[in-house]
Amino acid sequence: MRAEIIAVGTELLLGQIANTNAQFLSQKLADIGVGVYFHTVVGDNTERLLQVIRMAAKRSDLVIFSGGLGPTQDDLTKETVAAHVGVGLVKDSPAMQRIEDFFSQRGIVMTENNRKQALVLEGSHVFSNDFGMAPGMAIRHDSTTFVLLPGPPSELYPMVDRYVMPYLMNLLPESQVFHSRVFRFYGIGESALEERLIDLIEKQDNPTIAPYAKEFEVTLRVTARAATAAEGEAMILPVEKEIRDRVGQYIYGTGEDSSLHEVLVTGLIQRGETVACAESCTGGTVASLITSVPGSSAAFKGGVVCYTNEVKHQVLGVPEEVLNTDGAVSEKTAQLLAEHVRKKLGSTYGISVTGVAGPDSSEGKPVGLVYVGIAAEGLPTVVKELRLAGRRQAIVGRAAKFALFYALQMQKER
Amino acid sequence: MRAEIIAVGTELLLGQIANTNAQFLSQKLADIGVGVYFHTVVGDNTERLLQVIRMAAKRSDLVIFSGGLGPTQDDLTKETVAAHVGVGLVKDSPAMQRIEDFFSQRGIVMTENNRKQALVLEGSHVFSNDFGMAPGMAIRHDSTTFVLLPGPPSELYPMVDRYVMPYLMNLLPESQVFHSRVFRFYGIGESALEERLIDLIEKQDNPTIAPYAKEFEVTLRVTARAATAAEGEAMILPVEKEIRDRVGQYIYGTGEDSSLHEVLVTGLIQRGETVACAESCTGGTVASLITSVPGSSAAFKGGVVCYTNEVKHQVLGVPEEVLNTDGAVSEKTAQLLAEHVRKKLGSTYGISVTGVAGPDSSEGKPVGLVYVGIAAEGLPTVVKELRLAGRRQAIVGRAAKFALFYALQMQKER
Repeated sequence: MRAEIIAVGTELLLGQIANTNAQFLSQKLADIGVGVYFHTVVGDNTERLLQVIRMAAKRSDLVIFSGGLGPTQDDLTKETVAAHVGVGLVKDSPAMQRIEDFFSQRGIVMTENNRKQALVLEGSHVFSNDFGMAPGMAIRHDSTTFVLLPGPPSELYPMVDRYVMPYLMNLLPESQVFHSRVFRFYGIGESALEERLIDLIEKQDNPTIAPYAKEFEVTLRVTARAATAAEGEAMILPVEKEIRDRVGQYIYGTGEDSSLHEVLVTGLIQRGETVACAESCTGGTVASLITSVPGSSAAFKGGVVCYTNEVKHQVLGVPEEVLNTDGAVSEKTAQLLAEHVRKKLGSTYGISVTGVAGPDSSEGKPVGLVYVGIAAEGLPTVVKELRLAGRRQAIVGRAAKFALFYALQMQKER
Repeated sequence: MRAEIIAVGTELLLGQIANTNAQFLSQKLADIGVGVYFHTVVGDNTERLLQVIRMAAKRSDLVIFSGGLGPTQDDLTKETVAAHVGVGLVKDSPAMQRIEDFFSQRGIVMTENNRKQALVLEGSHVFSNDFGMAPGMAIRHDSTTFVLLPGPPSELYPMVDRYVMPYLMNLLPESQVFHSRVFRFYGIGESALEERLIDLIEKQDNPTIAPYAKEFEVTLRVTARAATAAEGEAMILPVEKEIRDRVGQYIYGTGEDSSLHEVLVTGLIQRGETVACAESCTGGTVASLITSVPGSSAAFKGGVVCYTNEVKHQVLGVPEEVLNTDGAVSEKTAQLLAEHVRKKLGSTYGISVTGVAGPDSSEGKPVGLVYVGIAAEGLPTVVKELRLAGRRQAIVGRAAKFALFYALQMQKER
């Protein structure tokens, strides 16, 4: 099946937002093996939109629109697709009910233009909007299926996951399932990972292997197309073995929602352990990653952002002599920060990060030099030296993730 | 001038990355009054790329490409545009020199395919790539100007700012300048701001008024097209007055690179002041925003992430009685945290944040209830109560920005 994605909205052409809906939809379609050949963005203009629709209908089997389903005059995706397909718009009663309920529950008078949102293409399959007012819809014309979705990601994402994907799966050849596994990596860049697996990735067909990089972590998704889930699983196993043989030491987890901090916090809670951190160059980033996980209060004691030597000395008891001879950016300081914050806050693990984030060097030490210390109850403290490249924000982000990665490694040993 | 943007790369169609280059280029073109009518993404495929180029040449005066200038066989933007325009590719000597230097400096053997990157369209205007190997270029054919740019944002952004924008300005009608001012807002949402200014935004023509929302802050750019900068300034002044009359209380700064934390840190350094923070629900986010500003070490003493009552009590001396009667999420706790962290770390200001980020309520208090405390040398401590909506990450992000905003207000009073 050949698919393309059309986003409608002048705000995209003005650069006010990025077209993240197209990215999301592309990932979803890739997951079920549907090839996306074009993304188009067009403004709120009937003539240009119609031109784009005609072109898409000629070259694609599946055309997914996002945006232009709202109440204003600028919203004209439904009207323009209706004109192309040659059908009218009819009221969808459940959608109208939702809209009326929304206004009456809030005691607000509904303006007339809101009714427009409950109109759908005559004969279309309607997707309920559980987080907004405008429903989505799908209609087939000639040999092309048109799917119309609301623009706001908070409405589009759940609609796609709940209703659109099952609908699209039904369009695919029968008795075909997509079975996939996600591997999560740290300590290896996307291009280095790709290089190590390039022959596997290039001969990818079934299963496919797709790497993604996000927030300094790399993810690999292996997807098999098969008659049953068990058959898909059997196809993934040898690929998994090959991946683990080559780059297994960088895999810290599997699954969708398992970023380093999520894996660490989940493990701590399961084991009844806690963590505390002392951060110099990362300035609170490790703590904010840990606390971004819902429920982290059960595992996170707290942290000290010891940006100055004063705070390292007074709050965390690093001797002035160490700060003056070894320096704030040193193995010794990292070790003491990790041990002292652990003891002071009474946690199972203590994480410390001290380094030079730049743009200027410090203590005559180069930008990118970072020490990560991990202290744990009953184990010798480990300090790792890192030489990180990139700008200030990248050094901070990578250093924080390395700290979480090393804490995870320590957890395995304990 | 009618412009469109074409991004070339299969990784975009797989959803591995979002098309942020198109967003960046659209903003830049909007700033100089060039209308963008289409964005297209097409894969690394000669036939489909050629189809897209022909369509673009018919409907646009300016076509900007990103991606497909690299060394591999998949990189075929230059080759395909050359075929459309009917010119050959020639070696650009400065680019070749840069590539050879790159490899010789690192002592790596250069593979033959890297030479491909120094080839440019015959007769094109070349843009130097200061952060990579493949140069950009511009060529005019019939009535259309084609601009080819490298895909990596770290190469494209500086090339556009340094070389492409001045080149494009020269294509515009003579003696026309774009004069703009950026206003930065906090404490008001994008839609509320737009509602208050909708009549101004809608009649926008010259000057134009464009709102952007990013990381919980809202920015408004007013751009005048005029014969001289002085004339542009004169056109902006009455618009600025109107904006300030209506929503002036939410403006905290003007200018491009002046996010709340940047404005706060710059002000602290200029005034020789310092700050420290005690964070409960924001878990280190305030500290990491402050320390994201280069040079912040001169103004930031450090912080305590006091996630548990234990740490609030032991490290920051909040009496157990207050924690037990008022609670951790209370005006009193916020006040004491701000005052105590300021004294303990010896700073001019102390910022505290304590609240319920969710997903569950805490101490019987609702998700979204947040107290921000600001203590300052020689002034009474101020505590603000916030009722924030949204998910955990949004509550944390907004609460952190409110804390910075209130600290800025306190700075004005001091």
